[in-house]
Amino acid sequence: MTNSPDTFATSIQRALDSKTKPIGSLGRLEQLAAQIATLQGTLNPSISTCQLIIFGADHGIAGQGVSAYPSEVTRQMVLNLLSGGAAANVIANSLNIPIQLIDAGIAGDPIDHPNLLNRRIAPGTADFSLCPAMTPDQYQLATSHGTEIANSITTDAICFGEIGIANTASASIIAHKILDIPLPDLVGPGTGLDQSGINHKLDILTKSSDRTPTPLDAQIALTEYGGFEIAMMSAAIQSAAKSKRLVIIDGFIATAAAIAAINSDPSITNALVFSHRSGERGHDAMLQAINANPLLDLDMRLGEGTGALLAWPIIKAAAAILNDMATFESAGVSEKL
Amino acid sequence: MTNSPDTFATSIQRALDSKTKPIGSLGRLEQLAAQIATLQGTLNPSISTCQLIIFGADHGIAGQGVSAYPSEVTRQMVLNLLSGGAAANVIANSLNIPIQLIDAGIAGDPIDHPNLLNRRIAPGTADFSLCPAMTPDQYQLATSHGTEIANSITTDAICFGEIGIANTASASIIAHKILDIPLPDLVGPGTGLDQSGINHKLDILTKSSDRTPTPLDAQIALTEYGGFEIAMMSAAIQSAAKSKRLVIIDGFIATAAAIAAINSDPSITNALVFSHRSGERGHDAMLQAINANPLLDLDMRLGEGTGALLAWPIIKAAAAILNDMATFESAGVSEKL
Repeated sequence: MTNSPDTFATSIQRALDSKTKPIGSLGRLEQLAAQIATLQGTLNPSISTCQLIIFGADHGIAGQGVSAYPSEVTRQMVLNLLSGGAAANVIANSLNIPIQLIDAGIAGDPIDHPNLLNRRIAPGTADFSLCPAMTPDQYQLATSHGTEIANSITTDAICFGEIGIANTASASIIAHKILDIPLPDLVGPGTGLDQSGINHKLDILTKSSDRTPTPLDAQIALTEYGGFEIAMMSAAIQSAAKSKRLVIIDGFIATAAAIAAINSDPSITNALVFSHRSGERGHDAMLQAINANPLLDLDMRLGEGTGALLAWPIIKAAAAILNDMATFESAGVSEKL
Repeated sequence: MTNSPDTFATSIQRALDSKTKPIGSLGRLEQLAAQIATLQGTLNPSISTCQLIIFGADHGIAGQGVSAYPSEVTRQMVLNLLSGGAAANVIANSLNIPIQLIDAGIAGDPIDHPNLLNRRIAPGTADFSLCPAMTPDQYQLATSHGTEIANSITTDAICFGEIGIANTASASIIAHKILDIPLPDLVGPGTGLDQSGINHKLDILTKSSDRTPTPLDAQIALTEYGGFEIAMMSAAIQSAAKSKRLVIIDGFIATAAAIAAINSDPSITNALVFSHRSGERGHDAMLQAINANPLLDLDMRLGEGTGALLAWPIIKAAAAILNDMATFESAGVSEKL
């Protein structure tokens, strides 16, 4: 038996409305349940396993003083993640979600650790205020690594997070270039710049933007303004979505990667869940530009996938409504007067 | 060693700021962590166990046609909860949270089931449009049962939920009477009234309110406008808070019970977490009146503790920040430039 998308949407709605609750009373959970059922093509979706992937890389633009922290903090925080002490570790542990950490291009020598997947493109991108952040070959390599990584993961859902000093600068300009959102609406404090730091960051990004036309296609925007972690994540998001995994997008940086992925293939949108509205001020501008309504608004602005992790229990609950709730008929409950 | 509250607040902030993340970047999670640490009086709070209590009862006011569902649905839904098919069951299962169900006064004969705790005051309250919902003795009994129930539970946190046809009517008028919020700001569709149904509900509640002065103390408001489940829950909230358990408040009805509890003892406020903003329109008016900023806003309006359940993973994550995250010093991470 084949279902047209329209009749399947009707079947989902009928299934949700048959459950023992007032119509629509589970709100966003019902929308999520319908999204997951549609993605998997079944009224009994499987949402039992989840994995967080954290992509780490460094950015040449950090040399222009656009971050409150020095570039070596990327490496230090990756080591912290590897020893279990970072925010993503403790939140993931509390939710029983495993973490896969990727070196997409951390500055310095390679880190040799059994839990760090080495997919280094280079020890950091070039300074995009002066030249393209990466070469076309580097972009292609990041893309193929991202695809391979997503294909190697077999969980029902994947949380996408990142670590990389100065990557709010990269993410801001990528969103600006792809969606033509004004840079001043996107540029914020990142890890903690004061107002003069934000002004300087905006100056550097404005100058960097002037090197190229606006708008740009995702592929060019990622090559020019980089982030090996953002380019790799963007490819991984596309592959995960195409293979019907639920893609849980974290905050500011992951949303920039999602914007690039959607620009390359708008059909992936139905696999994406935007987990939270970041406290980083430009995130809301990004979300509005792509009509995304995030699940959570907890004033978090840390990255590492921390917001995406917190969406997972809500997603599991949403699927459980379809899979496990009784119907008015099966439970013998009277319907509305 | 003794700490004044002020120096302990400083210690909490110092502990949070020493963790490997930009200052304040975990937003609401950090506020929650500080609240839990303050409640338990330790920088390493225990947040590992949680229980949902659902209080069920019927309301004489249902006879006035203030609900979209007939009164017998309370009993049917309690049976559904006992057989595991309700929304609260499947969400609680997905989060590994056990449920304790209480019969506080369901209409009809007592339900004999090993998982239903019989604390029936009467088979439903009297019709509060005509007379007080309960006698002073019934109120005292509900209060003592609520206290006993809270004291019998030993988990670190307790989610408070309810089931009872017409209890948005009772909750609306209780919030109106205690806080003097105008009734039109509080009265909404409940389980699904249309506009003429809402108008009728408002008429009945306005007439019912005219029987007594406004404002009223919580004890009188609960006696006059009842809800055995609301009165019992209000007492249980007070007892749980006084014994330093974290009290997770669900939606519209549970917030009315919390408002009554706070009115009786404002010192309990520091134990309360408001889990979500309900889709029931008057909930926001209640929350604003007590300066409560809920964690979630998922357009849910089901009750049964479903919103409270979804706050639990966020609360666990918040405590894990204090308990398990590395510090800049311990992880060897450079601090801000």
